[in-house]
Amino acid sequence: MTKPALAEYLHTHMPLSRSMAVSVVSASAMEVVLEAPLAPNHNVHGTMFGGSIATLALLAAWSVVHLRLEADQFAGQLVVSRSETDYLMPVSGQARAIARLGGVDWDSFSSQLVRHGKARVTVTTEVLSNDLLTARLVGTFAAISAE
Amino acid sequence: MTKPALAEYLHTHMPLSRSMAVSVVSASAMEVVLEAPLAPNHNVHGTMFGGSIATLALLAAWSVVHLRLEADQFAGQLVVSRSETDYLMPVSGQARAIARLGGVDWDSFSSQLVRHGKARVTVTTEVLSNDLLTARLVGTFAAISAE
Repeated sequence: MTKPALAEYLHTHMPLSRSMAVSVVSASAMEVVLEAPLAPNHNVHGTMFGGSIATLALLAAWSVVHLRLEADQFAGQLVVSRSETDYLMPVSGQARAIARLGGVDWDSFSSQLVRHGKARVTVTTEVLSNDLLTARLVGTFAAISAE
Repeated sequence: MTKPALAEYLHTHMPLSRSMAVSVVSASAMEVVLEAPLAPNHNVHGTMFGGSIATLALLAAWSVVHLRLEADQFAGQLVVSRSETDYLMPVSGQARAIARLGGVDWDSFSSQLVRHGKARVTVTTEVLSNDLLTARLVGTFAAISAE
């Protein structure tokens, strides 16, 4: 899936991403980078709302697993089962979420998925603003093969 | 803050809550109940997007702490520092998030806030759909007194 295709996919199938004005900076089966501006995502203090930060990070993590599964020609569902977010400092401008599969044992996940029709994978997203690390999300996703 | 006042406050100061069509079912300094419909919050599978579920739960947790601090005439900031969400089952309709201060040692939190000008409090939100528990969020918030 190309960069504009991922943006269109997210905006259509997860309309909250459109409300948040999420854009795709880059997208591959190894790394997805998403951005969101402050305006539609601010909180009572004029910085970015924690819900937007965590959602942006979750979208990036979901997307990179989705793209890798697509490259593997997986057919089925991919849903989040757990997420943990640490908010390290306020986000006073645009936020950039970077999710990478670098540290993930994809072969183990993939073989379990083939064997059992279901497997879980955990991905970390870092959220940067002005080149500073402002939040970190650890998301666990369940992939369930179509019958 | 009354029920309509909280809805107006959230929609104005956290515009993502308006995009999610969040409504206030009940609001007091002990319990806040929020709801969100499926339509603006769906995912690729036609159920509720995890980002919306976690955000609804976070808003409820934030709101009940905010209302209790308001009742205590606290002046300052209230920001999320950590959130953990377990997604237990798909949400196929409206979601209802219930955040209660029942299990919170408010006196300890409050005295620390007075003494140090800063304190953390952890609140749990349960998210129900069709009367079933579908997700649980544990949110930790930092209150910081105004100078």
